[in-house]
This record gives sequence, C-alpha cells and structure tokens, in this order.
Amino acid sequence: MNDHLAMGPGREFDAVRALLAQWGPAARGVGDDAAVLDVPVGEKLVVSTDSTVEEVHFRRAWLSAEEIGWRATQAALSDLAAMGAAPLGVLLALTVPRDWRAALPELAAGIGAATGAAGAPIVGGDVTDGDRLALAITVLGHARRPLSRAGARPGDVLYVTGVLGGPGAALDAWMAGREPGDVARARFARPEARIAAGQWLAAHGATAALDLSDGLAGDVAHLAAASGVACVLELDAVPCLAGVRVDAALQSGEEYELLVAAPAMDAAAFAAAHAGLRLTAVGRVEALSPVGAAGAVRAERGGAPVALPRAHDHFAR
Amino acid sequence: MNDHLAMGPGREFDAVRALLAQWGPAARGVGDDAAVLDVPVGEKLVVSTDSTVEEVHFRRAWLSAEEIGWRATQAALSDLAAMGAAPLGVLLALTVPRDWRAALPELAAGIGAATGAAGAPIVGGDVTDGDRLALAITVLGHARRPLSRAGARPGDVLYVTGVLGGPGAALDAWMAGREPGDVARARFARPEARIAAGQWLAAHGATAALDLSDGLAGDVAHLAAASGVACVLELDAVPCLAGVRVDAALQSGEEYELLVAAPAMDAAAFAAAHAGLRLTAVGRVEALSPVGAAGAVRAERGGAPVALPRAHDHFAR
Repeated sequence: MNDHLAMGPGREFDAVRALLAQWGPAARGVGDDAAVLDVPVGEKLVVSTDSTVEEVHFRRAWLSAEEIGWRATQAALSDLAAMGAAPLGVLLALTVPRDWRAALPELAAGIGAATGAAGAPIVGGDVTDGDRLALAITVLGHARRPLSRAGARPGDVLYVTGVLGGPGAALDAWMAGREPGDVARARFARPEARIAAGQWLAAHGATAALDLSDGLAGDVAHLAAASGVACVLELDAVPCLAGVRVDAALQSGEEYELLVAAPAMDAAAFAAAHAGLRLTAVGRVEALSPVGAAGAVRAERGGAPVALPRAHDHFAR
Repeated sequence: MNDHLAMGPGREFDAVRALLAQWGPAARGVGDDAAVLDVPVGEKLVVSTDSTVEEVHFRRAWLSAEEIGWRATQAALSDLAAMGAAPLGVLLALTVPRDWRAALPELAAGIGAATGAAGAPIVGGDVTDGDRLALAITVLGHARRPLSRAGARPGDVLYVTGVLGGPGAALDAWMAGREPGDVARARFARPEARIAAGQWLAAHGATAALDLSDGLAGDVAHLAAASGVACVLELDAVPCLAGVRVDAALQSGEEYELLVAAPAMDAAAFAAAHAGLRLTAVGRVEALSPVGAAGAVRAERGGAPVALPRAHDHFAR
C-alpha cells in the first residue's frame, strides 16, 4: 500500500499497519509498489472493479461496519462468480472519513471474512481521507473459459440460483422507516458471491451468465441484448422469498445470485454440490423475431403472456 | 461497468455511455461483468491500486480537469514502471460529485491520453456519486522478472531517472499562495510514468526499484529497509531542477521518477533509449553494519558525512 499526504505518513502508516496486522497472512505481497501474481497457464485473467459508497449503496444506520465490509467485498467478488472464475486476489481503495476511523477494525474484519470465505488474498490497496465511506474493490480471477453475457442460444433454459426478493424487501422496509425481517435483512447485509456455483455452471455447459444486480427483470433484458436473443420469463416459476410477491422479486436488485442460460441442467446435482442452494428454471431463450426485436423479454404466467413489471430505483422513490 | 443506484440507472448509463464513446477503442471488454485478459505465458501478473482525491492530492484551483485525469492515471501507472512491468490494462473507480459532472469529458480526455501514452486499454470500472472527486485506479501489467524493493545488494549503485524537485517546488508555491513556475508546475501536473525506462532497467540488471512518491530521502530509506542494506546518498550528485536546492529536491514527493539499485549502468545508453532522459548515480549500497543498523541511510557531500534532511508533508504545514 502506498502512503498518501492526506492522513499524514504517520497516521496512514499506522492505519495500514493495523489493517495488515489484523488480516495477517490473508494479506500478501503488500508493501512493494505492486503485487505479483501467477495466472495458471492456459487460463484467462478476469478483472472487475466495484464501488460501494455510503448514502449511495447503503445508509450507516442500516448496517454494522462489519456487514458493510462483508457486503462490499462479496458484491465485488460476485462479478467473478458471474464469469465462472476462481478468485486470484483483491485490491482495496478505501476512503475513510474521520468519524469512521474508529470503526476501521470492524470494517476490516468484514472485508477479511469475505475474502477468506472466497479464498482470495488481499494483494494491495490504499487508504485515503474523504467525506464519505467508500470502498472501491478490484477483484482478480482466472478461468479457462470465462462466461460472458453474450453466449445464450435459442433453446437454452434460463436458470437462477437461490431465492429472490430479499434485498428489495429489506430496502423497501428501511425506506418506509421500518426494520426489515431477519431473513430479508440478512440477504441484503450478508450476500454470498456464488463463486463455486459459477464455476460449476461454467463446467456444466452454461452458455451465458451474469449476476443479478439490477433485479431479474432488468438483468434478463441485459442477457437478451448482449446475446442477441429473446427471453421468456415464466413468472410463476420465479423462486421468491417467503412473503415477497413475484413482482417485487423481479425488481429486487443487488441479489448477487446468478442468472444463467444453459441447455437443461441437473438442479438436484447442483444443489447437492452447493449445500442445498436452489437452481431454478425460470424461462427460456428464443430466437429474436423481426417483429419482437424491440421487446426482447416477454413474461408469461402458465404459458399466457402478461406484462413484465418495470425495474425501479429504491433510493429514488 | 456496473450500474449503481446513486445516479439512477439512466443517468449513470448516460455518463458511462458518454465515456465509452469518448474513449472509443481505447476502452475494451467493458460491458460484461468483468474483463477478460491474457497474461503472456512465462510472465507474472503485476497489479496495484492508487487513489487520487480532491483536497488530499490536489486542489481544484491548481489543475485543469484534463490534468487531474492525466496525473491520477500516470501516478497509478508509475507503480508498474517501478516493477519493470508492461501495462496490460487499467480499471477506474470514479467518484464524481454533482458540480464535477460538466467536467467529466475533460477528465476523461486526460485519463484517455494517459492510458493511450502507456498503451494500456481501459478494461473496466464504475462511476458513483459522492462529495469529492476521487479516482481509484487499478493498473495491471506483466513482467518476466518483476523488480521489487527488496533486491538491492552491497556494492550496487543507486540511480535516479530524470530531474528532481519540481512537484515539491510547485506545491510550495501553491501553499504559499503563489503560482509556480511553468517547469515545476508541469512536473506536478503532467508527470510521466517511466514505463519504458522501468523495463529497460529491469532488462539491464537492476536489482531493486521503486518510484519516488515520498521524496528521494524517504524512498531511499524504504529501499534500504526492504533490502536489508544501508544506503549512502551523495547530495552533490542529486539532479535538481534549476532553482531548486538539494534539500528541497530530496523532500519533493510524487515525482514519479524511479530510484533503482544496480551494478554500474550505461547512463548514455539509457538516455539514448529514452529521448534524453537522465539516469544519474546518486549513491551506493553498503552492507548493514551492526552499529549503523538503526540509521540505514547516510548522506555525504564530497565524501564527508552530513545530516540528511527530513521528509516533510506539504499539506500539513
């Protein structure tokens, strides 16, 4: 980690030293100008940057510092999951306002727990002063055949991992001044990047994937557009958290579950390999018809066409 | 690039679309969850993250938006130069306050010019709202034998590239309410990561290197500590910008020149290969003596020991 003028060399070095002591062997290669890593021969390097910012992605009253660190790190790692990649390392650019400094060890504990769960060492980063807590997290991974959004083919089935609607329900409760239920809150506060699931799906014939960051309705449209196909969503099939309606589940963003297109898959084998995690068929991929090109996503209920609920912005309401 | 709630999907997508249109083919692989890159077989992956934050690393009145983008990107790329690595790609996490949005194209022009000069494609990133302009820049590179700070050996010569003191003189002027001279200002506003020089030095036997971010006096101490050696600086040999005293040049940080340890090198061949860039011997590496271990850096003038000026913090004055 490099030092910066802001905190003064002494103070920042102290903060960085404390972080490194806390992370122990989970932080490697930090101290040189850059970290040195090996990408396995024959594999591609997969990289992504993802920022989590106070008042943009969460409010301080909602989450503990440990949860903020965990969630920001898992959100970044989720991009590796979507590519079917194995983690190689994580770099952190932390902006820490004065009134957050006392919470830094707790924040670091959440980051360290998340990188540890993913088996990803912390290989670099820096700490700077600022007005809002912000975590810009770069994740590095490797994959022999990275999944993209662009490979879905007519005839593929659309699957989602897990159960949807929790983060949206939690945000809806907080925005209405209520405390969310425990399960919905945990889905927002403690998401799990589907790293192992992404690699399993890539190895079992997935043709395209992305993580659910905008909500299923919006992300199916992204997959359809990138792949140049039409998608049909079976609303009755969408796996919803207990108490969440399908309309709300379709709009629930930041799920960090995976949406994949694939020939028919063995959901039981998937669940057995991932501690019971569900893999649910929620639709199918069709060829773009010249007539239907403008609306590349259609919704059905029991085979009959219905309107697709629009995505919404929880913070903007 | 992923979208974030803050700016609203529409507004952020517009900002990202405008950036991508401006960068054109210089931005690649953006649009999937992560970018896919190849590290040449037999080479190591080299990665680093570096943040530039308004009011921490610069003040808005000092620099144009184009210069801020250029400088932040070159500062990040400088870590690849210090490792003797060739650039592979750059990821950007931009925090853009409302009153900076109109300047985004100019900022992007500076970033694009800097990545273009280094031959590094922009492979990912995100844009979020915030209170201060901040650029967290992750650089990826590759090298067969990356240089570290830790390889200097007794008998090596210490070299620096370029001429020192410009950024410190510029900061001193601004902090005193004066406008700096053109040359000092340009050294602060338009640094050049010594990418080609770093690779040349690695190929010609450099044993250790780092970029001058804290000032020569402080960075020699970092090299000595990491390598477990003592270093002697010949103050009369330090190449200073015209009008800058050696004491000030030793304390001038964010130079983005390289400090290297190496057996004797051919400075004329180096200059010929790098458009006349200077390579100057400024000292030597010695074994740590049990007595001198605590103070691993000594200064001399004409062979006689003198006190080493202490590093200082321009902003903290």
